[in-house]
Amino acid sequence: MAATLIDGRAIAQQVRDQVAADVAAFTAETGVTPGLATLLVGDDPASAVYVANKRRACVAAGIADLHRHLPADVAQEQVVAHLQELNADPQVSGILLQLPVPAQLDATLLTGLIAPDKDVDGLTPISAGRLMQGAPGLRPCTPSGVIELLDRHDVPLEGAEAVVVGRSDLVGKPLIHLLLQRNATVTVCHSRTRDLAAVCARADVLVAAVGVPKLIGADAVKPGAAVIDVGINRTDDGLVGDVDFDAVREVAGLLTPVPGGVGPMTIALLLSNTLAAARLQRG
Amino acid sequence: MAATLIDGRAIAQQVRDQVAADVAAFTAETGVTPGLATLLVGDDPASAVYVANKRRACVAAGIADLHRHLPADVAQEQVVAHLQELNADPQVSGILLQLPVPAQLDATLLTGLIAPDKDVDGLTPISAGRLMQGAPGLRPCTPSGVIELLDRHDVPLEGAEAVVVGRSDLVGKPLIHLLLQRNATVTVCHSRTRDLAAVCARADVLVAAVGVPKLIGADAVKPGAAVIDVGINRTDDGLVGDVDFDAVREVAGLLTPVPGGVGPMTIALLLSNTLAAARLQRG
Repeated sequence: MAATLIDGRAIAQQVRDQVAADVAAFTAETGVTPGLATLLVGDDPASAVYVANKRRACVAAGIADLHRHLPADVAQEQVVAHLQELNADPQVSGILLQLPVPAQLDATLLTGLIAPDKDVDGLTPISAGRLMQGAPGLRPCTPSGVIELLDRHDVPLEGAEAVVVGRSDLVGKPLIHLLLQRNATVTVCHSRTRDLAAVCARADVLVAAVGVPKLIGADAVKPGAAVIDVGINRTDDGLVGDVDFDAVREVAGLLTPVPGGVGPMTIALLLSNTLAAARLQRG
Repeated sequence: MAATLIDGRAIAQQVRDQVAADVAAFTAETGVTPGLATLLVGDDPASAVYVANKRRACVAAGIADLHRHLPADVAQEQVVAHLQELNADPQVSGILLQLPVPAQLDATLLTGLIAPDKDVDGLTPISAGRLMQGAPGLRPCTPSGVIELLDRHDVPLEGAEAVVVGRSDLVGKPLIHLLLQRNATVTVCHSRTRDLAAVCARADVLVAAVGVPKLIGADAVKPGAAVIDVGINRTDDGLVGDVDFDAVREVAGLLTPVPGGVGPMTIALLLSNTLAAARLQRG
């Protein structure tokens, strides 16, 4: 029997509608309009599209769009000054430095300057540490979106065997801790894992986030498993995920398509994080 | 064939001798004597013994012993003031707030105040985040000691299946990332794991850190595996680990005893971290 497909677009819209309602209630109660400061450096066309989408989504959810666009050759100390200003500005609930930045800038240093309570991407070391230690804080959007997709389909995580393929700071490593906090038994695989298919085939919940087209075949999937594909790879066949969709669809119980699976969740969770950040700043 | 036992006391002494030699070279080169500030609050007898052992080990390694002992009923703002003073003091390379602290004090808040570059216990959120993201920083002593024991016995970690039982902030969670950085395929188990013995029996490297006496039996160990027992449990039979030593000894390839396994490594790595902190502060 073919897997049930997870409709990421529909779920993302539900999350966005809920955030819009929550933002309206928050603003009515506090008089504060949450605001997201997107900081774009240079003219990378893909980054421009991503940022424009985020800004449009903010406004649709009742969040103020506080955009800054800096020239590609901006000096590092200028970007530092902008970040410090945004950190101090009470209108700014969340700050998003769009990556990648031009080569003369130190992305790690700049990201690390974002105030932890405004770090809506959840990428600073202190946000990572708060996640790891289960302390309150902002969690990275894409891995939170993965958990949300599983929850909306009532996938049991408690005691489940979860396997994460990929160990990026953006997705794989945060997912370890999000899944652990839900009491899954978690395994992390990567390029040095010896028998990847065999390890993946143990999973009740399998998340692929490595950026290798169609890496996960049917032999790597336990019948009935929930399979979440975070990969978005541009190939001659168009956009494909890390999962061999046609093959895995015949084995899995639940499966995300690419596109239209995890992708739309990232912006939805960014909105949710911006509201959470506005709440954090009210203490 | 019975497992080879890992002599944690002997290895810890080797580490301490090496740190002493490195401290001497550092001091000769820089004119700076590394210093460890141990902060003890109250009169818990076990804590007093632990702190005394750490202080003696410092002096033996050429590290200045900068101890402060505060009365049990000290107010939180007093402890905060001491920590701020220690953060600012250039004589202080590392700061260790001995836990637990009396009930009127907020241990998480106080630990979080320690300057990241002086956090020789590696327990602040920012140290946890640095570890998770593979950034330079101070790592928790006990999990680092586990890796050191494996290295001294040339246990291959690259591509190995490593299973960590327990998900504490102190041991289990940091070990996930230390083992991942060594390219092991890492699984984390805990009280909600469904078939603990079956999951553990996959491990080439098995680390138990849950605090349940003799939880890990022979059925949970792959023949020839390296088994590291972090547990120290006081029972009617005396100190026992999380591993059923007599049973597992017949199956494992390498095994730590309790006591005399991981225990002595914690102080050795604390000394090593204090020197590392002194280096961090010189930039």
